[in-house]
Amino acid sequence: MTLTLPDLAADAQVRADDRAHVFHSWSAQALIDPLPVASGEGSTFRDYAGNAYLDFSSQLVNLNLGHQHPDLVAAIQRQAGRLATIQPSMASDVRGELARRIAEVAPGDLDKVFFTNGGADANEYAVRMARAVTGRRKVLSMYRSYHGGTATAISLTGDPRRWPNEPSDGSVAHFFGPYPYRSSFHADSPEQETERSLAHLEQVIVLEGASTIAAIIIETIVGTNGVLVPPPGYLAGVRTLADKYGIVYIADEVMVGFGRVGEWFAVNHFDVVPDLITFAKGVNSGYVPLGGVVISQRIAEYFDTVAFAGGLTYSGHPLACAAGVATFEVFERDGILERVRDLGARVVEPRLREIAAVHPSVGEVRGLGLFWAIELVKDPATREPLVPFNASGADATPVAEVAAACKRAGVWPFTHFNRLHVAPPLIISEDELRRGLDVIDEALSLADARVG
Amino acid sequence: MTLTLPDLAADAQVRADDRAHVFHSWSAQALIDPLPVASGEGSTFRDYAGNAYLDFSSQLVNLNLGHQHPDLVAAIQRQAGRLATIQPSMASDVRGELARRIAEVAPGDLDKVFFTNGGADANEYAVRMARAVTGRRKVLSMYRSYHGGTATAISLTGDPRRWPNEPSDGSVAHFFGPYPYRSSFHADSPEQETERSLAHLEQVIVLEGASTIAAIIIETIVGTNGVLVPPPGYLAGVRTLADKYGIVYIADEVMVGFGRVGEWFAVNHFDVVPDLITFAKGVNSGYVPLGGVVISQRIAEYFDTVAFAGGLTYSGHPLACAAGVATFEVFERDGILERVRDLGARVVEPRLREIAAVHPSVGEVRGLGLFWAIELVKDPATREPLVPFNASGADATPVAEVAAACKRAGVWPFTHFNRLHVAPPLIISEDELRRGLDVIDEALSLADARVG
Ligand SMILES: Cc1ncc(COP(=O)(O)O)c(C=O)c1O
Ligand SMILES: Cc1ncc(COP(=O)(O)O)c(C=O)c1O
Repeated sequence: MTLTLPDLAADAQVRADDRAHVFHSWSAQALIDPLPVASGEGSTFRDYAGNAYLDFSSQLVNLNLGHQHPDLVAAIQRQAGRLATIQPSMASDVRGELARRIAEVAPGDLDKVFFTNGGADANEYAVRMARAVTGRRKVLSMYRSYHGGTATAISLTGDPRRWPNEPSDGSVAHFFGPYPYRSSFHADSPEQETERSLAHLEQVIVLEGASTIAAIIIETIVGTNGVLVPPPGYLAGVRTLADKYGIVYIADEVMVGFGRVGEWFAVNHFDVVPDLITFAKGVNSGYVPLGGVVISQRIAEYFDTVAFAGGLTYSGHPLACAAGVATFEVFERDGILERVRDLGARVVEPRLREIAAVHPSVGEVRGLGLFWAIELVKDPATREPLVPFNASGADATPVAEVAAACKRAGVWPFTHFNRLHVAPPLIISEDELRRGLDVIDEALSLADARVG
Repeated sequence: MTLTLPDLAADAQVRADDRAHVFHSWSAQALIDPLPVASGEGSTFRDYAGNAYLDFSSQLVNLNLGHQHPDLVAAIQRQAGRLATIQPSMASDVRGELARRIAEVAPGDLDKVFFTNGGADANEYAVRMARAVTGRRKVLSMYRSYHGGTATAISLTGDPRRWPNEPSDGSVAHFFGPYPYRSSFHADSPEQETERSLAHLEQVIVLEGASTIAAIIIETIVGTNGVLVPPPGYLAGVRTLADKYGIVYIADEVMVGFGRVGEWFAVNHFDVVPDLITFAKGVNSGYVPLGGVVISQRIAEYFDTVAFAGGLTYSGHPLACAAGVATFEVFERDGILERVRDLGARVVEPRLREIAAVHPSVGEVRGLGLFWAIELVKDPATREPLVPFNASGADATPVAEVAAACKRAGVWPFTHFNRLHVAPPLIISEDELRRGLDVIDEALSLADARVG
């Protein structure tokens, strides 16, 4: 099929069907205006008017290998022609192969994989495993976190998307994670932040009752809620506390796994071995819905003789797994992890530090690999956010206009509250990356105008 | 790729990867022995030893168009080559087209579709919509039902899969649905069963407090828990009660939608219009994970200005939607609905009635379209089930040996408790269908030997 753009008739048809019949996530339906997308290739997608956008958000930070990667496309086409699907209770070659590949790169003795359709159900089932193994019910999770939309996952979530979904079942307690730029612990160094946030976590464990706590779930690097890279020693400290109190440590790597920060799993960067790791997105760039839980030997063995009380029709879907196997092949052949580390350290970090130095509206830049946040402030001294927490409508304008300027200049940014995130496909070229950062640099003058 | 069977080396490799690395749903991992599947075509799949199985369970009753349907395969391959994925907040041609197609065949003014990855999340989000619109929290669902594995969905579920997942959040109350063969209401006709089960439902509504009840969720025909076809007037009565008390009526059609009983939606057979319909499985035969909620105008309009508090990364996944659009094309071109009605009424029903007449172990056969149950009993007079409720291990042998005999004769059955279900792909040939029923007929002599 050849696509000739602009194609305004197609644009009108897609808009009409969408507005009449598609109900969108997290939105008031009459207040949105979804952009019809005609095509994608590599780091770029195009609308029907023919405008090209450099995808600096990798869609929802899932498109790690970019749009229409030829190897992933070929793997899907091949598997569709072989055996599109088979039920979870049977054995499938690609399902087993992908599980083996994941086990090979997972830390420690995390050797078995329970596949799901996405990130939320991965977290649902990880929590269920922890509850079964410990015989306890409560889960601790962070304020400033996102763990998915289904009932357990949204109750874990520490951002405003949880609010309209309350009351939940009352089995989650939220604690504060490290956030050196806005320390909840009045710390003045990353080391102190680590020490104090671990002391806080231990207090929460003690006051909630260790004997009631099944699991602690933590995004290894908090994603949507801020690209919060844990300071040195924090995750190792969590591991120690989990061991001390017999609590299962779940690492949510739905957003940061599979290369986003230059590692198969972000915990590898911190040399920490959780009991369960949840993943989705990058495992196959979201070309086919897929998620899962990687399970330590101790937990897997518990379920050797006790039935696991969870399941889903599409667990270990062959089409999705085939795209996952192809992802491993591309990562290895093309040295994706090395590429991410290189581009992050050599291009993104220095350029963002430059941007931070020249823009008074930039309070902090932080990140790892190809995953960065630019935190915007009204006043660099007080660190007052450029827009209030959970801003919407007119309150959100100061960030919305920066995003709009980026889009006009052909870069599709990821924004959340008072932040811009930089999360392009991992296959982005150095030129594209530099161009995108230049566009952001330029657009930030709009935010500067709001300072002071 | 050509496959030469038997291929025992491949079998061994698939088994080894599976046993070492794949964690399976609803199972004690050391007590299962998943069959490696090498290929599938139409109504048949093959293992690596070369054994062919007529798929009388359509995998998990999802494979409505059978294995490797050429049109679905082609649609997936084409869409993979065009645009495998795009995020939910944008507009996509196939997503809009599938939503429009679904709206066209959905009853009443159910005109908008919220897409999910499968059935469980469809039910999660349907309940969430009902809670938002009504401002109430409680949900009524049936004993003998399955609504999925995630937290809300499993709490709705009225079968033993819920038990290990309790306590839930306490917001679900279970009621008894009609089941003429084992009436909870001491009814002696379907009409009386309808009347009494509606009176029971109204009592539950009143005693739970109508003002606390957001939704009633009902499988239009109860699937896994018995192929319970509601007696005349039951669903219309539910609709009336829902209206009387301002409760949202959710029809779970994850298993029975998209042709299983000869209708796009099973509610069409009963001339009833729910407020929300949930679907998955048959929408694209599970070739790519997909589910969703079809939404009435009244509920959709509520969310015009109020944000819907739910979402998922893969909502309205283009690859999945392309397979859905192809499903519509095949259904229409090949007259699938008419075929199902014809085969059900002309082949399955008479043959099953014959089987019921000759086998003392068959207590009842019931169903619609290509969805039937054979209920096995120890004693046709007392109707004592052939195996106890929720039987496992040795207790389940009387049914397990019937299933094993079917498999030896090349038919893969669906069994649940004391029942065998007949749920082949809707494209099954008349010959295959007759052959499968013959095999079941033969295998039932093992059950007969247990009678008396
Ligand atoms: C850290 C994290 N966990 C879980 C999820 C939920 O994943 P999904 O949308 O596939 O359910 C997300 C999605 O953005 C995420 O970022
Ligand atoms: C009636 C019904 N609802 C919901 C579900 C859950 O669907 P899924 O397994 O895709 O989550 C099923 C699955 O069998 C079902 O039969």
